Amino acid sequence: MKISKRIEKMNFSSIRKLTPLADEARRKGIKIYPLNIGQPDIVTPDTFFQGVNNYKEKIVKYSNSEGITELRETFSKNFRKWNMDILPDEILITAGGSEAVIFTILSICDPGDEVIVPEPYYSNYDSFVKMADSSIVPVHTSIEDGFHLPSKEEIVSKITSKTKAILFSNPSNPTGTVYTEAEIKMLGEIAEEYDLYIISDEVYREFTFENTSFISPIKFENLRKRTIIIDSISKHYSACGARIGLVATKNEDLKMQMLKLCQARLCASTIEQYAASNLINTLESYIEKVKAIYKSRRDVMYEGLCNIEGVTCFKPEGSFYIFVKLPIDDGEKFSRWLLTDFNHDGETVMVAPGKGFYQSEGRGINEIRLSYCIDEKEIKRAIEILNIAIKEYNKLNVKY
Amino acid sequence: MKISKRIEKMNFSSIRKLTPLADEARRKGIKIYPLNIGQPDIVTPDTFFQGVNNYKEKIVKYSNSEGITELRETFSKNFRKWNMDILPDEILITAGGSEAVIFTILSICDPGDEVIVPEPYYSNYDSFVKMADSSIVPVHTSIEDGFHLPSKEEIVSKITSKTKAILFSNPSNPTGTVYTEAEIKMLGEIAEEYDLYIISDEVYREFTFENTSFISPIKFENLRKRTIIIDSISKHYSACGARIGLVATKNEDLKMQMLKLCQARLCASTIEQYAASNLINTLESYIEKVKAIYKSRRDVMYEGLCNIEGVTCFKPEGSFYIFVKLPIDDGEKFSRWLLTDFNHDGETVMVAPGKGFYQSEGRGINEIRLSYCIDEKEIKRAIEILNIAIKEYNKLNVKY
Ligand SMILES: Cc1ncc(COP(=O)(O)O)c(C=O)c1O
Ligand SMILES: Cc1ncc(COP(=O)(O)O)c(C=O)c1O
Repeated sequence: MKISKRIEKMNFSSIRKLTPLADEARRKGIKIYPLNIGQPDIVTPDTFFQGVNNYKEKIVKYSNSEGITELRETFSKNFRKWNMDILPDEILITAGGSEAVIFTILSICDPGDEVIVPEPYYSNYDSFVKMADSSIVPVHTSIEDGFHLPSKEEIVSKITSKTKAILFSNPSNPTGTVYTEAEIKMLGEIAEEYDLYIISDEVYREFTFENTSFISPIKFENLRKRTIIIDSISKHYSACGARIGLVATKNEDLKMQMLKLCQARLCASTIEQYAASNLINTLESYIEKVKAIYKSRRDVMYEGLCNIEGVTCFKPEGSFYIFVKLPIDDGEKFSRWLLTDFNHDGETVMVAPGKGFYQSEGRGINEIRLSYCIDEKEIKRAIEILNIAIKEYNKLNVKY
Repeated sequence: MKISKRIEKMNFSSIRKLTPLADEARRKGIKIYPLNIGQPDIVTPDTFFQGVNNYKEKIVKYSNSEGITELRETFSKNFRKWNMDILPDEILITAGGSEAVIFTILSICDPGDEVIVPEPYYSNYDSFVKMADSSIVPVHTSIEDGFHLPSKEEIVSKITSKTKAILFSNPSNPTGTVYTEAEIKMLGEIAEEYDLYIISDEVYREFTFENTSFISPIKFENLRKRTIIIDSISKHYSACGARIGLVATKNEDLKMQMLKLCQARLCASTIEQYAASNLINTLESYIEKVKAIYKSRRDVMYEGLCNIEGVTCFKPEGSFYIFVKLPIDDGEKFSRWLLTDFNHDGETVMVAPGKGFYQSEGRGINEIRLSYCIDEKEIKRAIEILNIAIKEYNKLNVKY
């Protein structure tokens, strides 16, 4: 009775690994500022909850495997706002963006295949790709370049006969980088030249803070058939627990093939789909307000971090994360120490170690990711505590 | 830009393939008796809907990857009713029984591995096993034996060095067979001798109609660590659209490894988990009543079928399906014909072709699966129509 090699190779969530330590700290009465997670603290719009009640049947039935029509129409209309022409029929509803990525990878990668991903990347991509017995080939980006893409040559040098796709999140988790039009075009060129799919994970699409606006590869005529879009209501509508996302493609054959996976698992939650359909009635001002809140928090956090001696960071252009280099020896050790051995006036911070977002050995050691899913006053206080913690950690020369 | 070999090998749902034909028939005004699907028509208990409202937060948050404690406790208590001693910590909540099977297979099968499954089987097993680039090795069972298991030797003859598990649904979809204690013990012996997992899909556990009661392999001390239980609220509580199921195992290492998959996809729907937790407050009389309804329908359907000349069927002992052999040349052709070219006084029936439940070439050709998820009066009428249809079909000597 063995387990599969596949599962053996997968990692536990490096963020969730710290949870027991945080629970222990809380038991001791310590207040923790959670800068580690991507769980929005902004209320879900009323339209969602009203939508829950829109499901009037007395039996909670299976819905279509591809997702209910109303919801696919809602998403299609939402895409139009972005000048993204995606028809309801080109959309498959999934259990969050997570299932959308899983279905995509299972549909295009055979065992031994490779997917190119700019590093640091959303850590769960690694498990999703491993589910298909395939592997991520990282393209390195660095904090000094604001995690923007390296040259075309450097990316091309990673391509082998096994490469099937380029996968990225834009705006990026964990870096907050938003790719420029030139970058998307460059990836498009590579995809065309080497006949690859482009998997564009746009679950933070609404959250961009600079004038450089968001660009989806699906906008380019020549990339329409090779682009696969991942989307979700989790972040845009603070509805992570609903598990409603989608995969969209104008590649009819690919969509039909992915439908096999949708049919096999029967459907996404029916009631949640009705709830999500009603998001179409959310005022545009909701998203505008949310975006303004994140932008303002970003400014506060960025400023605070810039004032800490020895910290390297770049101003994120989108999403709700910031990736920083600290003047410490080891981000993992530091993250644990913050929870086990440190507090300032009974308070501490919880952060995500940078290493978990890299595959390449030796990268991200002294980096951490911070999210800004708490309010500005708390962010200010959390950054003050982080500042104090760094000094104390280095003074103590902590060893484990 | 190719698709994966894996997805190419998967099949579309043979049941859902008929849907467009049924839609077309309905457009022509024909009434269709749906005997093809496993969508219960019995109302979901109020406790579920009340539970939806138990989620009082203003943000629909991610929940624990392993599932909320309340729900795991609810399931654990429910198992106790069956004298199955499964702790909340031995349970992982999944998006239906479907995700539970997928996670199980991904955790134990590497590419090229094999899973033994008594045939005919729940067709989606095939896709689930193919997701892991593994394959099903069928063990044949026949209508003449009530789809009970063949000899130990015959099953053992299917085992190779690649065999990882024995998977079955009990009570069975599609046959309605409930395995005897002797059969479960025999599978257990084989599993021990050849060091295999036993995957016991018990999503119809509550629906057994004979004195021979349901037996889970987890009850046997020697099988506790090698048994993996699949369960779901879909059928027991007529809550298919909720997408709440579980995988349970007393094998701590395996559970921890499966947790990696749970963490990667973040969580099951939060609100649905709260709703399902409240099912603990469902009166035992609800399940008793539902079981009595299915039993009575089974009797009506079985009797009706026995009165059709040339039909071979066996009285199902559980679930809500019956698998029958018809005096026709081809169940697929017949199923299509029922929707495209036949009606009796403006009515017809929709059935699931038997072939879709087999992998072995040539099996199930003249068989079909019928479900009894409509009321008794309708079942009677549907079987009358089926009788007339068979005669007409054979008289016309339908060719396509
Ligand atoms: C980049 C990215 N993609 C996908 C997801 C998956 O989110 P969900 O499955 O909730 O839609 C996340 C969640 O944090 C994410 O950050
Ligand atoms: C034998 C069996 N297992 C598992 C499932 C999956 O059901 P769900 O994912 O709704 O729990 C079904 C559904 O029909 C089934 O018949």
